[in-house]
Amino acid sequence: MQPILALNAFDMDQATALGGTLEARLLQRQKLFGAASVLFYERPLEFVRGEGCWLYDTEGVAYLDAYNNVPSVGHCHPQVVEAAARQLGQLNIHNRYLHPGILAYAERLLATLPTALSNVTFTCTGSESNDLALRLARHFTGAEGIIVTETAYHGNTALATEASPSSFKQGGPPPHVRVIPAPGGHSGGEKGLAEYFAEQVAGAIADLERLGMRAGALLIDSIFSSDGIYADPPGFLSQAIDVVHRAKGLFIADEVQPGFGRSGTCWWGFQRHGVQPDIVTMGKPMGNGFPMGAVVTRPEILAAFCDQVGYFNTYGGSPVAAAVGLAVLDVIEQEDLMDNALRVGDYLKQRLVELSKRHEVIGDVRGAGLFIGVELIQQRNGTPAPQLAKSIINGLRDRQVLIGAAGRFGSVLKIRPPLCISVAQADQLVAALDDALSAAH
Amino acid sequence: MQPILALNAFDMDQATALGGTLEARLLQRQKLFGAASVLFYERPLEFVRGEGCWLYDTEGVAYLDAYNNVPSVGHCHPQVVEAAARQLGQLNIHNRYLHPGILAYAERLLATLPTALSNVTFTCTGSESNDLALRLARHFTGAEGIIVTETAYHGNTALATEASPSSFKQGGPPPHVRVIPAPGGHSGGEKGLAEYFAEQVAGAIADLERLGMRAGALLIDSIFSSDGIYADPPGFLSQAIDVVHRAKGLFIADEVQPGFGRSGTCWWGFQRHGVQPDIVTMGKPMGNGFPMGAVVTRPEILAAFCDQVGYFNTYGGSPVAAAVGLAVLDVIEQEDLMDNALRVGDYLKQRLVELSKRHEVIGDVRGAGLFIGVELIQQRNGTPAPQLAKSIINGLRDRQVLIGAAGRFGSVLKIRPPLCISVAQADQLVAALDDALSAAH
Repeated sequence: MQPILALNAFDMDQATALGGTLEARLLQRQKLFGAASVLFYERPLEFVRGEGCWLYDTEGVAYLDAYNNVPSVGHCHPQVVEAAARQLGQLNIHNRYLHPGILAYAERLLATLPTALSNVTFTCTGSESNDLALRLARHFTGAEGIIVTETAYHGNTALATEASPSSFKQGGPPPHVRVIPAPGGHSGGEKGLAEYFAEQVAGAIADLERLGMRAGALLIDSIFSSDGIYADPPGFLSQAIDVVHRAKGLFIADEVQPGFGRSGTCWWGFQRHGVQPDIVTMGKPMGNGFPMGAVVTRPEILAAFCDQVGYFNTYGGSPVAAAVGLAVLDVIEQEDLMDNALRVGDYLKQRLVELSKRHEVIGDVRGAGLFIGVELIQQRNGTPAPQLAKSIINGLRDRQVLIGAAGRFGSVLKIRPPLCISVAQADQLVAALDDALSAAH
Repeated sequence: MQPILALNAFDMDQATALGGTLEARLLQRQKLFGAASVLFYERPLEFVRGEGCWLYDTEGVAYLDAYNNVPSVGHCHPQVVEAAARQLGQLNIHNRYLHPGILAYAERLLATLPTALSNVTFTCTGSESNDLALRLARHFTGAEGIIVTETAYHGNTALATEASPSSFKQGGPPPHVRVIPAPGGHSGGEKGLAEYFAEQVAGAIADLERLGMRAGALLIDSIFSSDGIYADPPGFLSQAIDVVHRAKGLFIADEVQPGFGRSGTCWWGFQRHGVQPDIVTMGKPMGNGFPMGAVVTRPEILAAFCDQVGYFNTYGGSPVAAAVGLAVLDVIEQEDLMDNALRVGDYLKQRLVELSKRHEVIGDVRGAGLFIGVELIQQRNGTPAPQLAKSIINGLRDRQVLIGAAGRFGSVLKIRPPLCISVAQADQLVAALDDALSAAH
């Protein structure tokens, strides 16, 4: 399976063709970073400044960022930067001393979540969060089976990678990780999808049992980001989660992607489905790019783990993380960003649907709030069109708009801007996409 | 095994006895953080400000920080804070776009390391670094065996925890992780220690072979921080590493603790031993508390991994991490902190040796640069004295000096101040320790 993350990767064999300073810098980077050096685009970009949804390159050209979800409240938001700078200059230490900031932040964060999820453990990244969450589930249930979707990405640690089929360039997850199709594999009606997805989960549980294992966790990103973005209908996850719960497994909601208001109607993606996770994980959007993450769960789940193993995250929950996290929550509320995500997201989706009437290669437009997928298909036979997607992503780059790709075949345009995007910026994106599509076919 | 990290932990049963605001805050924290809530000291501390080696509590009382190694160039160093604040306000994004900052930092960092180690991969934490390093070794060697010391701590991910015997409250590492005694287990001469330690490693390799496995990695923190601090004689690691290399395993130098000049004579702890690691890992001291880490290795080791699995660390190597990392290197050089570590470290060690002549409970004083261990023993029979260590740590807290505990029994006082500590501050530490020891026995 081609890893999703490399879909839009620059090919180093093309460095010489680019020439000049760019070639020199690419070669320097390759020498320093080696095989792990991955850059976006056929002509990589270098930015020097960010503000709101804009990224500025070395020539001062403004690019509309409709891709980066980590700077969720906007690039370099002054309120967040100021909070970080002030606290960095005052006190930045681990959380084995008392500090009121992290308690205030924990209270604020937990208030957005179901009451039963009353314990929070801070980490530095979403990967650390998912790694810990999987271990919590394993300790609490005594079962090592993990169920994930076929193109999921849940992080970069050894354990999170096992649960990330999209990260494998060769082979795939180990036997205790069962892979189910993404919700898009089913084309039936609303009731049908919920049942279909629940059946997939039940099938994975049965597979585990045949292998002598039990299901410890269903780990799901409720927007199915890497799988190609499947948000609707709200509630379709519910039956699948019932199935896992009946099998004594836990539901881990990976909120690194859909969380912090991105889906427009609620703080967390799982809330859109009206379901109750046992564990919720969060990552960098919570700090708008400052490295911080969290795992939220029920006290008894955390206690079962802590009985066996110590967990200490040196700077998870530092006073700086707390100050940054509080500033991000403030900005989301003060600037009505959840409402903006809903309003501009709906507008953008509607304009993309209109676009699909003039461009037959658009097979589907879907998503929730400011997480939108545009599926590109072959005009002739309706099959996925990953090469076209790659060409459109590079075409948009040449028109100063940044987006990415997702999905099993890499044929889904992934549109995931900072939550502060305006209607005018949405129009700019649609115009550029219209133009790029016209140029490409 | 009692986990080292909890040696100096506050007992929540004592919260009521403390009363007032402190009790209320402790209960609030317990409710929010649950079983993972761990605080230092019998009377937990709350700090509001840090500067150099000083931490100030809510009453404005200054505590001498002789414990925290993450704010390595001093708490809230203005040059580091300014670099972070400036870059946070300008551009903070993942490294799949070009940015000159991270290339400049990579060049600077690699220049401190052996030429063969020419590829760097950035992470956000030391745990992520060790997790990745263990996977690099496993992929490159095809062997899953890992050898670590008996009270080692290498991080908090699932894989790093497997390789951290000190994290287990019940049970211990899985069979493929072989645990060898720390160097302190041998009381022979200089030549004897090197041979003894090499024999332990050879024994672990033989154990793995008996279990049908091979040794993929020897993972060592060259200052043996959690094991109780064993630095001398320089070079004693060499034979053991030869043994691992002959068995086709890799040597991973965990530099989260000894790195960035702490041992006084060189940038990296392994250099003090004149050995060549295959992989070097780094953590938060590299950002003076800003969450950043790195894995440095040979290109072919990284390539073998990247052939199989994608690795992307969203904000590892962000422009902010680069700016902060460069500022830390600048400060170490401009303020001659490596030399200060050597000079004040030697002075402090000598004063502690003098102290040991008046306090028979000091069984040993050891370490390198500003990483010093003071082993406390029972006066009657010379056995380890963990309760005394706990009482001294709390006694020092009451005398406004912060230190910690280490070692298999928790009987070693761990002294590990920011690298900018002065001779006068070292004197203050010794005077407070003298006083606390006199009061305790």
